[in-house]
Amino acid sequence: MTQQHVTVLGPETGIEMQSGETLFDWKSTGQSLPGEWSIRRDTLRGGVSEGVLVVELCNGPMTVRVLPTRGMGIWNADCRGIPVGWNSPVQRPVHPQWVDQSARNGLGWLDGFNELLCRCGMSSCGPPGIDEGAASPIESRLTLHGRVANIPAHQVEVGIDSDERTVWVRGVCEESCLFGPHLRLTSQVSLKIGETSIRIHDEIENFGGGETELSLLYHINVGPPFLEEGSRFAVPFRAMSPRDARATEDIETWDRYLGPTTGYAEQCYLFDSAGDDQNRSLALLQNASGDRAFSVEFDPRQLPHFTLWKCTQAESDGYVTGLEPGTNFPNFKSFERQQGRIPKLSPGERYSVNLTLGIHSSVDEVTSTVDRLSGMQSSADSVVYSEPVAPFVDVETD
Amino acid sequence: MTQQHVTVLGPETGIEMQSGETLFDWKSTGQSLPGEWSIRRDTLRGGVSEGVLVVELCNGPMTVRVLPTRGMGIWNADCRGIPVGWNSPVQRPVHPQWVDQSARNGLGWLDGFNELLCRCGMSSCGPPGIDEGAASPIESRLTLHGRVANIPAHQVEVGIDSDERTVWVRGVCEESCLFGPHLRLTSQVSLKIGETSIRIHDEIENFGGGETELSLLYHINVGPPFLEEGSRFAVPFRAMSPRDARATEDIETWDRYLGPTTGYAEQCYLFDSAGDDQNRSLALLQNASGDRAFSVEFDPRQLPHFTLWKCTQAESDGYVTGLEPGTNFPNFKSFERQQGRIPKLSPGERYSVNLTLGIHSSVDEVTSTVDRLSGMQSSADSVVYSEPVAPFVDVETD
Amino acid sequence: MTQQHVTVLGPETGIEMQSGETLFDWKSTGQSLPGEWSIRRDTLRGGVSEGVLVVELCNGPMTVRVLPTRGMGIWNADCRGIPVGWNSPVQRPVHPQWVDQSARNGLGWLDGFNELLCRCGMSSCGPPGIDEGAASPIESRLTLHGRVANIPAHQVEVGIDSDERTVWVRGVCEESCLFGPHLRLTSQVSLKIGETSIRIHDEIENFGGGETELSLLYHINVGPPFLEEGSRFAVPFRAMSPRDARATEDIETWDRYLGPTTGYAEQCYLFDSAGDDQNRSLALLQNASGDRAFSVEFDPRQLPHFTLWKCTQAESDGYVTGLEPGTNFPNFKSFERQQGRIPKLSPGERYSVNLTLGIHSSVDEVTSTVDRLSGMQSSADSVVYSEPVAPFVDVETD
Repeated sequence: MTQQHVTVLGPETGIEMQSGETLFDWKSTGQSLPGEWSIRRDTLRGGVSEGVLVVELCNGPMTVRVLPTRGMGIWNADCRGIPVGWNSPVQRPVHPQWVDQSARNGLGWLDGFNELLCRCGMSSCGPPGIDEGAASPIESRLTLHGRVANIPAHQVEVGIDSDERTVWVRGVCEESCLFGPHLRLTSQVSLKIGETSIRIHDEIENFGGGETELSLLYHINVGPPFLEEGSRFAVPFRAMSPRDARATEDIETWDRYLGPTTGYAEQCYLFDSAGDDQNRSLALLQNASGDRAFSVEFDPRQLPHFTLWKCTQAESDGYVTGLEPGTNFPNFKSFERQQGRIPKLSPGERYSVNLTLGIHSSVDEVTSTVDRLSGMQSSADSVVYSEPVAPFVDVETD
Repeated sequence: MTQQHVTVLGPETGIEMQSGETLFDWKSTGQSLPGEWSIRRDTLRGGVSEGVLVVELCNGPMTVRVLPTRGMGIWNADCRGIPVGWNSPVQRPVHPQWVDQSARNGLGWLDGFNELLCRCGMSSCGPPGIDEGAASPIESRLTLHGRVANIPAHQVEVGIDSDERTVWVRGVCEESCLFGPHLRLTSQVSLKIGETSIRIHDEIENFGGGETELSLLYHINVGPPFLEEGSRFAVPFRAMSPRDARATEDIETWDRYLGPTTGYAEQCYLFDSAGDDQNRSLALLQNASGDRAFSVEFDPRQLPHFTLWKCTQAESDGYVTGLEPGTNFPNFKSFERQQGRIPKLSPGERYSVNLTLGIHSSVDEVTSTVDRLSGMQSSADSVVYSEPVAPFVDVETD
Repeated sequence: MTQQHVTVLGPETGIEMQSGETLFDWKSTGQSLPGEWSIRRDTLRGGVSEGVLVVELCNGPMTVRVLPTRGMGIWNADCRGIPVGWNSPVQRPVHPQWVDQSARNGLGWLDGFNELLCRCGMSSCGPPGIDEGAASPIESRLTLHGRVANIPAHQVEVGIDSDERTVWVRGVCEESCLFGPHLRLTSQVSLKIGETSIRIHDEIENFGGGETELSLLYHINVGPPFLEEGSRFAVPFRAMSPRDARATEDIETWDRYLGPTTGYAEQCYLFDSAGDDQNRSLALLQNASGDRAFSVEFDPRQLPHFTLWKCTQAESDGYVTGLEPGTNFPNFKSFERQQGRIPKLSPGERYSVNLTLGIHSSVDEVTSTVDRLSGMQSSADSVVYSEPVAPFVDVETD
């Protein structure tokens, strides 16, 4: 023997998933729900992941990992062995204690960003800066994408519903301080037994005594195998504007993706969303051969403004695209307010958001989803601007 | 069965008080102290409270919860079933890891503010900004109310004293960095068996090699049932100035309170404190009918400057008043220094503060406390300024 | 009985070393290594040390405490009963959650600074400020001495090597965010059985897709009994410049130390290092009588720029000197970049650093080390500038 060692922290991945605890499963409940489902809890150990709570829902085909410690974000999922999410250079879930949002010129949020679904908001989202129109200095110094992704849930419950045939987790996060906004997020993530989709139902309540602004964007991020060279994007829309000169460069191919491209600088496209007569809309990312797709179903009354984020840089830097429905565009808050895109909640008022993330794993499934999406889009309605236009972006300043 | 669930984190309140541990009680010590007292320890779990240590002292009529993790602040108390404290919109004790004091334009302290007693200091208190008179850049960028409320005690002891007939907790916190101030707080909170008061004894030591400044304010915050429409405030004083135009508006009713008032903006009144010939002074908040009161007894040599904070906004926003004796007023530090209200401690010097918070639960108790307070106040001495005056506030700038 | 008490947190020192866990020792491994060595793990409890992981290596004569939670820094050591390290006014290892590097005008790093070896870097070291030459706003707002000392290792292993006759600990820390630098430190600290030295082998890898800058300084800090009135410093060099007017004042005695001096302001001297023909260089601090010394052996190709930090202030303020080899001087990063002292790493490139800290406990040991050092220094080569000169410092600005 010349060498011996033990690992104090972390396996090869650098994250120790402790033995964890199965809270419920098909065996323990007398098969009150069909199939081999389970709900588990883990607490991550080691480095910046220390203390991060993970709730893992499994409904048979899918396993989904929710992070109550990170504002009920969804870390990632697996669907019949296919990874759903992306490989951020921030390789592990980051406990918010390590994220100084004021650092990096207000861009410190990036130090913790690696989820499949990361909420931006609730009081603001978009770039950092001084919001001259804020209610007070307590709310005026904005940091990138607001606070909610770095607020831990203080209440977390899991359960099953045999009528709905779902397994679910529900968490409550509060963004509040004396003299500031008082917003409470109650988020439920549920999986129907046997289905390959994730349902999210969020309610945001103003629990303060005065009116308060709401700004919310769902940063939904996907990499390979859904994203690859030749992947395509679609969303029904009435009008679309590139965000800036960089996005304008490739306006002709806004709905196609490059493979991993060293030095690629991000490109954003902003959409005025359309939907069907049941107020459902659908954003779709399909791979090059059209036999695999990821979709986001949303209600354009709840989330009328959609942002497509293309970030097809080198794999080691984070090869990813963002499908991002929101109450507003991720422009600076004062501009969004000016455009009437910042809703206000009265005392006690609740704002509901329903989202469904879907995984489609065959040509048939993809084709039928594309057909459904096409039905939502009356092509006559779709204006593609070849240059940034108001009121999508602040053309006077930019 | 259609639904089942388990709570992963948090009961209805969103805070899990773990089973905890009784460290001492009347049974375990062979009744060395009379009565049914106890000393318990809990660690809060869930959300922003995760890891907050609570030491709970019970002396029979009163239960007091001290937060070593938050600078030995006092979370709240119960006195014969009456809650002592207030309902901040920040609804749970906040572990300092979630408080970025630099955020919110230096007002991030508000993200953790909800205690009955919260110390401001020790190196500075008052509003944020650049203190041009600071010893170095290490000390010049001030954040609201300084660091001490967000410094954890590294040493905590509990005990009983059968001579004094007290149960107590003692903690030590240090505010120190290389090239910066070196201040050590040793705080003891004790309850005499059977009494309805809380005694606080603080010592602040300069453990560095050079002279250092001290700035300390006790933010003592009370809501219902002591505070209600028609509640009255009193403190013996030589002179009082409203802080600003907003306080001036209601100078005629400075000692009376409104009920919860949506949109009420805070009002502050600054007092040059008076005391009796034993150097005791007393601030009193009594309810409308005069059968319930909360008092703060202090030594005006130790804490010569008293601030009354009226914040009778809507209940959901935090309906509260602050009784705040301090070494200085909560004006910006450079102004307080100019007025000679920032004491300096020599190497090894200690500064002592004694405070007693009292609960008075009958007309008789309240009346005798009012009488005691009246005896401290020679009314001829009391000047009430109807507008902000120097040196209470910076009238040239404000 | 009049008094009883129990300690909830912390012994006299204010840090509770829990019972800990011996991971390996000479007994458990069947004496596969000679001598009474051990490797232990502790987690500190209480105050700002709560949750700090300590790995303690013991090789017989020496015990060394490594802090994976603080960027693999070395807290302190003991060598046959002699303490190796210094007494910072920050008296306990500080969990990075308590260090807000943006606070104190970007000097918040000082709130956690007390180690024998504290790395500065990896993206920047030196004073805070806006780096106009940074790749983006994500990297431009620099805080004192960069991030690495406050990044926790996410992977930690300990082991023994019977061929090398060493006990060791190895940890991995990442400084990375989307659109930012992606630097991975793998640090190994090892002790040879029976020897009185500490070997450090660091590898810093650029795991991103683009070129990235590296800036690294080893802040190695020593106090009594190595540092005392009359202690002497030596390092082989080609040229040395005082950093500023304050260092110029005592340029005649740059290699001698004062005893603890109340009010002493720090003095820094910057060296262009020299080494022997095996590219080894050696910095040496010896006590007044020359029977005890502390040395740092380094490779001037890896760390060509050496800074001597003299900080002989009062003991209660922190009486210490820093022996600091680096890739650059701790001037502001933009100036260092201008001088060509900021190396760049290509994608996948690794930068290696080897350091040996030595303890010398007799006149013979000290003399032979001095002789070795003298052999590295051709005195004809050594220029001592009596005033700050370019390119050591920015003489135009300073």
